[in-house]
Amino acid sequence: MQFAADINIMPIKEILDPQGKAVKLGLHNLGIDQVDDVRIGKHITIRLEAADAEAAEEKVKIACEKLLANLIMEEFSFEVHPVQ
Amino acid sequence: MQFAADINIMPIKEILDPQGKAVKLGLHNLGIDQVDDVRIGKHITIRLEAADAEAAEEKVKIACEKLLANLIMEEFSFEVHPVQ
Repeated sequence: MQFAADINIMPIKEILDPQGKAVKLGLHNLGIDQVDDVRIGKHITIRLEAADAEAAEEKVKIACEKLLANLIMEEFSFEVHPVQ
Repeated sequence: MQFAADINIMPIKEILDPQGKAVKLGLHNLGIDQVDDVRIGKHITIRLEAADAEAAEEKVKIACEKLLANLIMEEFSFEVHPVQ
């Protein structure tokens, strides 16, 4: 069965996000004020085969922990849903 | 009223994604096979003040089109929801 995983990897709150700060300034220059906070991370989509949703979630969790996220500086969240 | 926007910016389907290809290989080396496709983009969270949800969505749309996404190579999607 095929599954699609949507993964978000973001810098943890304790870490400064200079890219986000730069984008906030850019928004200000565009005339978009009243922006309080901007944070920039990665969005990763994976299509994978697995026996069931639980197996797919387990694979994605391992992928995040061992390869995709640096857990010292980043946190991850994901959703897995079946694909027709 | 304060709103939080979750923005995803992904390379369009017609564009090769070498970073995604590298991650697919990395997953294979981790023992996670049966991965069909990996694509890597940006996830951006913004907190902003706006009069209502419609105004917040309009601001986020302008931000995506004029600053955050390169519409020749990337496509964007976003969700805006109120924050207590």
